[in-house]
Amino acid sequence: MRVGILTGGGDAPGLNAVIRAFVKTGISQHGMTIVGVRNAFDGLLWTPRGVEPLDMPSCQGLLPRGGTVLGTTNRGDPFAWGPEGATVDRSADVAAAVRELDLAGLVCVGGDGTQKIALRLMRERGVPVIGVPKTIDNDIDATDLTFGFQSAVDIATEALDRLHTTAESHDRVMVLEVMGRDAGHIALVAGIAGGADAILIPEIPYDPRIVADKVLRRREVGRPASVLIVAEGALPMGADGLAVPGHLRKAALKQGRGAGQIAVDVLQPLVDAEMRVTVLGHIQRGGSPVPFDRVLATRFGSAAAGLVAAGAWGEMVRLKGNVVGSVPIAEAIAVNRGVDVDGELVRVARAVGSTFGG
Amino acid sequence: MRVGILTGGGDAPGLNAVIRAFVKTGISQHGMTIVGVRNAFDGLLWTPRGVEPLDMPSCQGLLPRGGTVLGTTNRGDPFAWGPEGATVDRSADVAAAVRELDLAGLVCVGGDGTQKIALRLMRERGVPVIGVPKTIDNDIDATDLTFGFQSAVDIATEALDRLHTTAESHDRVMVLEVMGRDAGHIALVAGIAGGADAILIPEIPYDPRIVADKVLRRREVGRPASVLIVAEGALPMGADGLAVPGHLRKAALKQGRGAGQIAVDVLQPLVDAEMRVTVLGHIQRGGSPVPFDRVLATRFGSAAAGLVAAGAWGEMVRLKGNVVGSVPIAEAIAVNRGVDVDGELVRVARAVGSTFGG
Amino acid sequence: MRVGILTGGGDAPGLNAVIRAFVKTGISQHGMTIVGVRNAFDGLLWTPRGVEPLDMPSCQGLLPRGGTVLGTTNRGDPFAWGPEGATVDRSADVAAAVRELDLAGLVCVGGDGTQKIALRLMRERGVPVIGVPKTIDNDIDATDLTFGFQSAVDIATEALDRLHTTAESHDRVMVLEVMGRDAGHIALVAGIAGGADAILIPEIPYDPRIVADKVLRRREVGRPASVLIVAEGALPMGADGLAVPGHLRKAALKQGRGAGQIAVDVLQPLVDAEMRVTVLGHIQRGGSPVPFDRVLATRFGSAAAGLVAAGAWGEMVRLKGNVVGSVPIAEAIAVNRGVDVDGELVRVARAVGSTFGG
Amino acid sequence: MRVGILTGGGDAPGLNAVIRAFVKTGISQHGMTIVGVRNAFDGLLWTPRGVEPLDMPSCQGLLPRGGTVLGTTNRGDPFAWGPEGATVDRSADVAAAVRELDLAGLVCVGGDGTQKIALRLMRERGVPVIGVPKTIDNDIDATDLTFGFQSAVDIATEALDRLHTTAESHDRVMVLEVMGRDAGHIALVAGIAGGADAILIPEIPYDPRIVADKVLRRREVGRPASVLIVAEGALPMGADGLAVPGHLRKAALKQGRGAGQIAVDVLQPLVDAEMRVTVLGHIQRGGSPVPFDRVLATRFGSAAAGLVAAGAWGEMVRLKGNVVGSVPIAEAIAVNRGVDVDGELVRVARAVGSTFGG
Repeated sequence: MRVGILTGGGDAPGLNAVIRAFVKTGISQHGMTIVGVRNAFDGLLWTPRGVEPLDMPSCQGLLPRGGTVLGTTNRGDPFAWGPEGATVDRSADVAAAVRELDLAGLVCVGGDGTQKIALRLMRERGVPVIGVPKTIDNDIDATDLTFGFQSAVDIATEALDRLHTTAESHDRVMVLEVMGRDAGHIALVAGIAGGADAILIPEIPYDPRIVADKVLRRREVGRPASVLIVAEGALPMGADGLAVPGHLRKAALKQGRGAGQIAVDVLQPLVDAEMRVTVLGHIQRGGSPVPFDRVLATRFGSAAAGLVAAGAWGEMVRLKGNVVGSVPIAEAIAVNRGVDVDGELVRVARAVGSTFGG
Repeated sequence: MRVGILTGGGDAPGLNAVIRAFVKTGISQHGMTIVGVRNAFDGLLWTPRGVEPLDMPSCQGLLPRGGTVLGTTNRGDPFAWGPEGATVDRSADVAAAVRELDLAGLVCVGGDGTQKIALRLMRERGVPVIGVPKTIDNDIDATDLTFGFQSAVDIATEALDRLHTTAESHDRVMVLEVMGRDAGHIALVAGIAGGADAILIPEIPYDPRIVADKVLRRREVGRPASVLIVAEGALPMGADGLAVPGHLRKAALKQGRGAGQIAVDVLQPLVDAEMRVTVLGHIQRGGSPVPFDRVLATRFGSAAAGLVAAGAWGEMVRLKGNVVGSVPIAEAIAVNRGVDVDGELVRVARAVGSTFGG
Repeated sequence: MRVGILTGGGDAPGLNAVIRAFVKTGISQHGMTIVGVRNAFDGLLWTPRGVEPLDMPSCQGLLPRGGTVLGTTNRGDPFAWGPEGATVDRSADVAAAVRELDLAGLVCVGGDGTQKIALRLMRERGVPVIGVPKTIDNDIDATDLTFGFQSAVDIATEALDRLHTTAESHDRVMVLEVMGRDAGHIALVAGIAGGADAILIPEIPYDPRIVADKVLRRREVGRPASVLIVAEGALPMGADGLAVPGHLRKAALKQGRGAGQIAVDVLQPLVDAEMRVTVLGHIQRGGSPVPFDRVLATRFGSAAAGLVAAGAWGEMVRLKGNVVGSVPIAEAIAVNRGVDVDGELVRVARAVGSTFGG
Repeated sequence: MRVGILTGGGDAPGLNAVIRAFVKTGISQHGMTIVGVRNAFDGLLWTPRGVEPLDMPSCQGLLPRGGTVLGTTNRGDPFAWGPEGATVDRSADVAAAVRELDLAGLVCVGGDGTQKIALRLMRERGVPVIGVPKTIDNDIDATDLTFGFQSAVDIATEALDRLHTTAESHDRVMVLEVMGRDAGHIALVAGIAGGADAILIPEIPYDPRIVADKVLRRREVGRPASVLIVAEGALPMGADGLAVPGHLRKAALKQGRGAGQIAVDVLQPLVDAEMRVTVLGHIQRGGSPVPFDRVLATRFGSAAAGLVAAGAWGEMVRLKGNVVGSVPIAEAIAVNRGVDVDGELVRVARAVGSTFGG
């Protein structure tokens, strides 16, 4: 049995660990032959095909390595392939390439976008697929956790640790902007782990006056420094009654200012303290996965091989509680998961002193 | 409401985070007054009492800090207090001190030993207690996870990463001995995260010939280096037919040789390669908790305050799936959890190439 | 003998290690009494005075701790004290406070600004001072090295390591902006340590065509990813003949775009690749000092105590070769040190494949 | 011009960075062809020869990688080749292989042993050699610093940081044994960086009573915990008057007890506290080099290419002050450097509170 594996979307720590576990399990437990496809689905459209055999020796050193040895791309939807405005449907070519390469199916490691493409390829072009979820933001509802998330949390927490000392030395308010356009999981978990005084997330539009009040009350009890963590999708309330109207936000975004800078813009007048913003950016996705993610990625990769062997096409690996199992891709891509604003984590964060500004 | 908190048994990364979350939640959510007891139950027996008020300012800087600011001890059972051979029962004195200090109860953060003492104090001396589980080994069955475990796994994995490079440069077999006298969870999880070629744990007595065979087969395919992880309680099979009898094991232990050195002793003759052992020892328990443990410890500490406020004496905090809840201490201390030798993690480890020697 | 110590300017990893070594050496070797002054010279102007006794117990835990327990400020020149436009000369008040507190002199840990103030206080107000140099940028010519620099280099290098994996997974050009407004030492040393393909520093205005050429030649040999490190003061050449005129640079700066974004602006059209910029910002100054800086800071703090004991007022501690000695502050503040553009490090960086764009 | 490069002796972080810098500089600056020799000199004796071309692509990913891609060995002296007791002189075969491979010379990266062999090969067999010093212990007098040393110091310091928290939680005395059979540089520098209460090194035989006195005096001022760092070659005084005679030391060594355990044996009776020893072992040599070592190794590798190009055979790269230059190997191997027991570092360590036990 020959099977292809590819990685799509933004990179995440643990992709190589998934590949390694899939290859090792596929070969040793199920006697498969594995082929890696380069740059998501793109490799199937190249001439010559962008594919390479993956055997035991090719797994050497993969486990702790960041990124993905197969390459990836954020674009490259075969159903709308090519430059914007001039896309063509090359999904039939992908299906043809799969047949030509004699692949029983494709294991597609990627986020929502990749899984949607995979599902369409199966439904519309008859390409058997297995999904492995990947999102640093941890916002796929079908799985309790995804690899890469904890690595990003660790990097964000380490940054918070560093900012605390600078904040305290200078009596400043330091702002850390982390990933999370639609879901604030990284900000929430790193905020708890790093003892942030405020955690600003997309799910809870924040009232700058509440956040400023927190900073000011700290100052009153002799702690003039504060550290705030802000998800890149967190925005202040735009409601009336606020001195902070929407046009400020738009203007800021236009100038390339992100959520961190916006927070400074709306808070600085209220707190009357030096504020500084740090944008972590891509260093959250790069580098070696933390051990937690290596184990989860290994479990996912190994489970994907089991699903392939069982012919469970259309399924996506997932973690529920402590159990690695699977769920139909169709079901998985239906729902994203934001932070439960009434959930335990938010309550705990509030109880230990973090404000959400609302 | 005045409540005491103490930490018992070996230290673990996250103890201070538990204390901080308990104090912050207890004060801000439930209006408690918190008192810290020094060196487990011992502080209640000192004159003057080894207790100190814990308020918001005393929580400053606690979250990332290793160890426990309250101090701890591995001895100090008030039911058998004092030097071995001349112990006295001072449990009544502990109960008297609790009354004297006007404490509604004690939050006892500790492992099996501490929880057993806590339960006896409640049953036999009427001291209300709440338990918070603590074991780096993660072997308390009542809770899916304990704080400190992931920190230990991270340190062990980093050590494996380092040993891999030395092993490969020298064509050597490197052995890493990690904690785990009765349960091999650290060795198993770190072994998966660090890509160990063999994972030797107490739950699976290993056949040195199987382990040696793994090392030799690697050499045959051009990989003369191997890295083994050994829990401190892992021992070779003592069965007949083996060239490695039990007297060797005993002799080794007598000479202060641990499980790692024993593995070298029994494997070296079979693999004919240079072997080197590293014993991680206490650096596995020390230092700042990883973000994962900081969050778990914060959740546990916060939940303990909720249990106290609810008057749920006799309960122990625990994690099941993703939910922090509680279980009667009496039920919790009944059962330890070893590695499930047929479980998913062991199967995954085998599938990606680790042998267990049996 | 009573002596004061203060920290001025931006914080740097190692400030607390200097304080600790000064206090411990001063007390144990020279029988001094030490007083810490808060927020640079400001504490001397407060009522009541912002000073605190520093003894052996107050040194506990200081060595690995980031920031400065004495607090610091970037403003607060007593010769021009107060809000801009309404400053007053309070240097006489500082001198009076020193006499009032019965201090034999002040140990001033800080950068160029702090040392200049210290010198004026000695010359114009008769306040005996000893200087300890502090600059993360390592641009004080009088000392071969300053503490904090290596910590910043380590953080920048770790970020480069992470960006490499993301760059390679996505065939992208990643840009890392690091500190260095006037001197490119951090970018140069981290660039060598992190294998940057281009190192852009203030001392060498770069020709975007040369940098783009490097990126393109890499692509030709099958390495479509590149990683660039850019000091915050690095700018493209403004000369004629270039498609990249000065107005673009000014416009970018106006929009709050830093050197990293400017590099993207001028390079993107030439390389036709996705580019992403990360600005490390304040996480370069925060957190625990690396061991190298802890040792250097300890040597500096200990040497400062020796200078005080010897009555060598007006001297500044410094490292030359491997020897910690001193130099008159007057001499030290005269000259800053940029990267030697023909020096060994630049030649080595070029030899191993980094371009400077000029 | 074809040149060979090899690595000998124990591995050290930075070996791959030397290889990379040598290859890149040799090719780009001097037009060389580079050949890597496997397992020190051994590869020249294998049939077929254990050599491989090293070009630009083979340098990919080498900079941050621990160990040595060329392999190394602690044995393999071609003048005394083979198993102990049956060695033969194969130096002529090495020289013949060098000629056969048309190598202008060999760049030998290694410690004292490797440099001695290299020099003999040049003198007795006419093989042109260039030396690059390598010793984690930093005990080659001809060079101020060697790569790998700072990486080892960092690992040891991190371990000290961890042990401090455990020591303080348990009121224990923790002992960390680090590398340094003949020279105590790692223990000294890490001891300063990690705030060790005692630093025991081979150069200063320690009086257990002095060390115990330090521990006891700390306890008197309310600090019952202490952390000791012990170089593997550090031993207590054997003089009369001591309750700790030489036979104890011998007996301990016989039982595989190292310097750390010996320190416990002689100190425990005097301090009446729980003591625990951790032996860092091989994790000090493995893993990615810290940025400081990557830069130093890169400078050394690049300089080696310059020496080859200049035909400066018989020279060894070295660092003096801040300048990378060279010295005749013959001169370099004459003298080892121990810790200067009256030097600045020892004085500073004493001033900030570390005892050396003598």
